[in-house]
Amino acid sequence: MRIVIVGGVAGGMSAATRLRRLLEDAEITVYERSGHVSFANCGLPYHVGGVIEERSALLLQTPQSLGARFGLDVRVGHEVVGVDRDRHVLRVRDLASGREEERGYDVLVLSPGAVPVRPPVPGIERALVLRDIEDTDAVVAAVEGARSAVVVGGGYVGLEVAEQLVHRGLQVSLVEAAPQVMAPLDPEMVEPVHTLMRERGLDLRLGTTVTEVGERTVTLDDGTELPADVVLAAVGVRPDSTLARAAGLEVGARGGIVVDEHLRTSDPDVYAVEKRDALDGSATLVALANTANLQGRLVADVIAGMDVSDRPVLGTSVVGVFGLTAAATGWNEKRLRAAGRSYRAIHTHPANHAGYYPGAEGMTLKLLVDPEDDAILGAQGVGGAGVDKRIDVLATAITGGIAAADLAELELAYSPLYGSAKDPVNMLGYIDRNHRDGLVETVQWHELDDRLASGATLLDVRTPGEHTAMPIPGGINIELDQLRDRLDELPEGELVVHCQAGLRGYLAARVLAQHGRDVVNLDGGYLTWAARPDGAAATPSGDDEDRGSPAG
Amino acid sequence: MRIVIVGGVAGGMSAATRLRRLLEDAEITVYERSGHVSFANCGLPYHVGGVIEERSALLLQTPQSLGARFGLDVRVGHEVVGVDRDRHVLRVRDLASGREEERGYDVLVLSPGAVPVRPPVPGIERALVLRDIEDTDAVVAAVEGARSAVVVGGGYVGLEVAEQLVHRGLQVSLVEAAPQVMAPLDPEMVEPVHTLMRERGLDLRLGTTVTEVGERTVTLDDGTELPADVVLAAVGVRPDSTLARAAGLEVGARGGIVVDEHLRTSDPDVYAVEKRDALDGSATLVALANTANLQGRLVADVIAGMDVSDRPVLGTSVVGVFGLTAAATGWNEKRLRAAGRSYRAIHTHPANHAGYYPGAEGMTLKLLVDPEDDAILGAQGVGGAGVDKRIDVLATAITGGIAAADLAELELAYSPLYGSAKDPVNMLGYIDRNHRDGLVETVQWHELDDRLASGATLLDVRTPGEHTAMPIPGGINIELDQLRDRLDELPEGELVVHCQAGLRGYLAARVLAQHGRDVVNLDGGYLTWAARPDGAAATPSGDDEDRGSPAG
Repeated sequence: MRIVIVGGVAGGMSAATRLRRLLEDAEITVYERSGHVSFANCGLPYHVGGVIEERSALLLQTPQSLGARFGLDVRVGHEVVGVDRDRHVLRVRDLASGREEERGYDVLVLSPGAVPVRPPVPGIERALVLRDIEDTDAVVAAVEGARSAVVVGGGYVGLEVAEQLVHRGLQVSLVEAAPQVMAPLDPEMVEPVHTLMRERGLDLRLGTTVTEVGERTVTLDDGTELPADVVLAAVGVRPDSTLARAAGLEVGARGGIVVDEHLRTSDPDVYAVEKRDALDGSATLVALANTANLQGRLVADVIAGMDVSDRPVLGTSVVGVFGLTAAATGWNEKRLRAAGRSYRAIHTHPANHAGYYPGAEGMTLKLLVDPEDDAILGAQGVGGAGVDKRIDVLATAITGGIAAADLAELELAYSPLYGSAKDPVNMLGYIDRNHRDGLVETVQWHELDDRLASGATLLDVRTPGEHTAMPIPGGINIELDQLRDRLDELPEGELVVHCQAGLRGYLAARVLAQHGRDVVNLDGGYLTWAARPDGAAATPSGDDEDRGSPAG
Repeated sequence: MRIVIVGGVAGGMSAATRLRRLLEDAEITVYERSGHVSFANCGLPYHVGGVIEERSALLLQTPQSLGARFGLDVRVGHEVVGVDRDRHVLRVRDLASGREEERGYDVLVLSPGAVPVRPPVPGIERALVLRDIEDTDAVVAAVEGARSAVVVGGGYVGLEVAEQLVHRGLQVSLVEAAPQVMAPLDPEMVEPVHTLMRERGLDLRLGTTVTEVGERTVTLDDGTELPADVVLAAVGVRPDSTLARAAGLEVGARGGIVVDEHLRTSDPDVYAVEKRDALDGSATLVALANTANLQGRLVADVIAGMDVSDRPVLGTSVVGVFGLTAAATGWNEKRLRAAGRSYRAIHTHPANHAGYYPGAEGMTLKLLVDPEDDAILGAQGVGGAGVDKRIDVLATAITGGIAAADLAELELAYSPLYGSAKDPVNMLGYIDRNHRDGLVETVQWHELDDRLASGATLLDVRTPGEHTAMPIPGGINIELDQLRDRLDELPEGELVVHCQAGLRGYLAARVLAQHGRDVVNLDGGYLTWAARPDGAAATPSGDDEDRGSPAG
């Protein structure tokens, strides 16, 4: 069998090597347009910044090593420019010489990856991108001696590269058209990231777009001119469907090649990549190396006749920015609201391990739950050590169909070095149970103003010192430990209680509800409220008193 | 309602505070025999070693703080010495004064914790234990000025305390009757821990018992005399069922109080703690703070009339020793073999994150799978950073009923700082799929000798340099990249291939099987074989070539 694979990075090379393990006698050819295969595409920003010192560390395999180990015929610098599906013949161009030749196939696998999108503004041709080794070489050369840079786009790659340029000592501006960076996170989750980036000297420009790229500047839509010895476009990617379109294959509305659950295109001898969403089955584009690897292997299994099929994606993601970790899985609140789905949101501000053991770091976790069946719809985490662990556990819980309330009973590895007797994930479950069982009702940070406008009283149950230092305007203060003795000081009507992180507020709400009061708790407390987009977010630190579980 | 709780640490105090949140008007009294409630019992070894500097950091709550916040009547230094169940009356002794008084109850909760077991040998009364704050004070005082210590027992507390005593500069021996420390791990997983402990100067005495405790020495059953200014007994705990027996409640064979799924004892007005095993439903004793907290809350919910019930435990656990992390969940191979259950075992030696990003640390993971239905039965991990994360994900996968093969598709948060495009957990799933689909057969380290004795040829597919430096005796060597060209050099009959960590061996097995050879791969490669109990284990470092996935 003659198998030709177009694209030699994550998905394509996973398919090629898996095919060899299944089909020792197949003739397997891989065409890669760039000069390298199997390079560490997720490491490119870190080579720009010098964290990965050696360029060679990015080159995981060569055509020679793949030939020796897997018997693959790997051609770099070769572009497939046409497909004659009737004749089962490709037209392949050697980019160095410009020569073209024909190449027959029995099975064709398209894994062309994605192409960077560039905003259509004057001068944009000067902007560099960061998708392959050649791009990286160009960025490294451009940064040498440069003093300023503008990164356009606040997605994961934009953030990583902006941090690395700051790390190299450049004056860096990051321009993002949306009001926030990192679209997978909700606004109150991402605000601490904004704060930290600004603290580290990054000039963050949100809700604004580039109108022109000049010789040493970038102009924004509000007229601002930013210094820009280097311009880097990281506004995202679109599927590279040029070849698929040229071949007359069916292509979806968002540019992805249409495939069935066996990743077969509209031509049964041609396979390609497309992902469906895990929560509503809609088509989605996830440009992540792990799903690409998984799909590459799946294509190989299908071609070799194994009984496998594709499953929808959650889209779990993580980024490290200036030592902070931000991660997400599943749906976020923005998307749930846009889709008109009902949900409940839970915010907590735990520490990564027992507070009494030295070195505990704070984080904020957010859980989104279906109020009908208690299913976990999504989760987000921002903070120090241990955020990635909790998001991985929650992504696994979603995949395993574990209900939110059952997170309380998850048995996670506990010693004071690694977690808490009630792990942050367990705490999400405990909180969810209290909602599910009707023990407490909460308001979200974005609902507080309306609630107070309709006559509710805001009651701060923190200590007077906390109340004075970190006020939410308009509130009265009775600290929790005095509440039972001072019930008669409270005005009539609905009460909104709050504390620093949510726990003392919940305890106060239980006291008040059992004394017949109409009460709701501010979800996530002061810390979540302060992280609202127009607020003054602190990087996650939490509050020891709210964070502690009663025993180690 | 008058509720009395016996025991004021994890389980008891979780019950008490939850009861207050549900029953504002109940009269809740907590009796604690020791001088402190809600102390950080898992932190005690670290205060002995000085890592947790302040003793006060261990005291999370006081009777006063619990009174102010939760309206609890907490009596430390009080022991409940008798229960008259007919009259619903307790006899309570004030340990300071020796005075006794009666106390009525409507509902009684027994959370007396466990008592340390001491080996019954002459002189053992000199041995200290480490269960509460008073014990800790005694150990801190004894260690002051001491030069040598013997820790009896290689469970988690024994290991933690032995490390802390080494940290304080003492000459420390650890005596364990079993041939290994840390019973939840299988022998080839724990061997690197033994090696590291010895490297750090700990005198590790396995498979031996103490016969006598002298004034400044400890004598072993082989006649060895160990210097022992301090002797610490950490051989385990047994449930403290003295009170339950005295009260005529039903007590199980292993000493736990018998309860139903609502944690109710044989008396409907008395509740207590017992855990059932998640995998076979048998009674099990798990002395961990997280399950105790969970059960305390459950008892409170049942008493308050909520519809909840207990679920069996997996027994997830973790310990940090000299910077190494060792964790386990579910069943281990020892237990599966003893129970006569069929299983397949998978060993891998991955890195915690992408090898091309600086600072990657090695680990060894082991997965145990039911070959009938591909269910995950258990998992173990030993190594550097990220072990706790993978065991947490696997514990969650077991709870969610995720099949081993589906671990390949788990979407875990990936960036080169946090993981690999194929995370170690994904790799376990990929390997399991290959087993499930019959693509490869493996032998375990303990099966190799028999296989070779029955005529199989051992083929090392690592490079000649690796073959010479780290040999498994009796093997021939053809490196993987030359295998296709040198097939005719191989002898007739069955082949056992191996490499360093298992991946190249698998690739070679696929080549050989597709050329018609009868071949099995040595699971986990040289590294797992070298970690056999009589071998020469290295601390987990893995092998970059076997570890890498083809793309970042």
